[in-house]
Amino acid sequence: MQGFSPDFQSDLDRLMRWRRDVRRFRTDAVDEATLARCLEAIRLAPSVGLSEPWRVLRIEDPALRQAALDNFRAANDAALSGYDGDRAQTYATLKLSGMAEAPVQLAVFCDESTDKGAGLGAGTMPEMRRYSVVAAVTQFWLAARAAGLGVGWVSILDPDRLARDLNVPPDWALVAWLCVGWPEAESETPELQQAGWEDRSDSLHIEVR
Amino acid sequence: MQGFSPDFQSDLDRLMRWRRDVRRFRTDAVDEATLARCLEAIRLAPSVGLSEPWRVLRIEDPALRQAALDNFRAANDAALSGYDGDRAQTYATLKLSGMAEAPVQLAVFCDESTDKGAGLGAGTMPEMRRYSVVAAVTQFWLAARAAGLGVGWVSILDPDRLARDLNVPPDWALVAWLCVGWPEAESETPELQQAGWEDRSDSLHIEVR
Repeated sequence: MQGFSPDFQSDLDRLMRWRRDVRRFRTDAVDEATLARCLEAIRLAPSVGLSEPWRVLRIEDPALRQAALDNFRAANDAALSGYDGDRAQTYATLKLSGMAEAPVQLAVFCDESTDKGAGLGAGTMPEMRRYSVVAAVTQFWLAARAAGLGVGWVSILDPDRLARDLNVPPDWALVAWLCVGWPEAESETPELQQAGWEDRSDSLHIEVR
Repeated sequence: MQGFSPDFQSDLDRLMRWRRDVRRFRTDAVDEATLARCLEAIRLAPSVGLSEPWRVLRIEDPALRQAALDNFRAANDAALSGYDGDRAQTYATLKLSGMAEAPVQLAVFCDESTDKGAGLGAGTMPEMRRYSVVAAVTQFWLAARAAGLGVGWVSILDPDRLARDLNVPPDWALVAWLCVGWPEAESETPELQQAGWEDRSDSLHIEVR
């Protein structure tokens, strides 16, 4: 067996512990070689039937970035208006995206109509195509963090409006907007926990049947 | 910064290259300490709003395992009948699950109605809860592979029938059936590629906008 050392396994655990969703980025550029190496983790991800349904757009056009930021702000304002009292006060203090600062921003879609893989594994669960894209994002996230980069996944967006603004094919479903760059700070504690919004559980419950 | 060495980054890349969806398992038991260490990767996964919507059942009851295997066989027969000619012939030769052999089998659900996280980040994209569960499965997969374990994600299942057979709450959505055990063999090449079903792409295309 081509094995992995105990040191590697322990560092992989440390990476997962330290990953974080990053929303506070420095504005200095990410070098292209580092970024390309991390993006390779998308290509290596599992995909249902080897369908590789991920479609990755790198958004550089200032007008498109502004449209996405406006989209986020509208969705975030709407979300805030759904909370009352202390929850609303806390929500208003949260920084939930680095879209105004992150030097690299990726819009990641799933091509729901790809022929690749001939539909294998997606007959009863067609959502497996989107799940494959999520697996790819997760692998990218880990690879980027291992390189010291920060990644933030923004989901407070109207996906239909974003798809229109980016003029993507009708069968592409938004899976993730990713902000990528060097993080301002590091922490083992999720930012939502630091802000008093929600706590991470201390243990995983597994029910045996 | 609490960094990760170039050796670690290179081994992480090697892990992703070597991961595979495993469908051929030895039947010897997995030791509980190793399994528990790998399952910790689920707890450490990113989740929208820290909602931690993953619900993990470990299926040991032979009758429940048989019901799931029957479910797979029915869905797989139906899938086969949707292919013609060469595709059908190739499909019939594929081994698409290790459910008859894998010593550990997990049914992983998403609790769509969890209060945890108070809905943060899931207003416009409620599917983010399922995506959080997919991220957890992906992290478990990598941790298990790093420990030498094989993982196979079975999606050729009728999810409603499985939910009924397992008698889970109505708001739980099936995300994955996972087979876990020691793999019979290792390969860098996806089994579907070896079987001539589909090829992995050589490069990732990223469109700049």
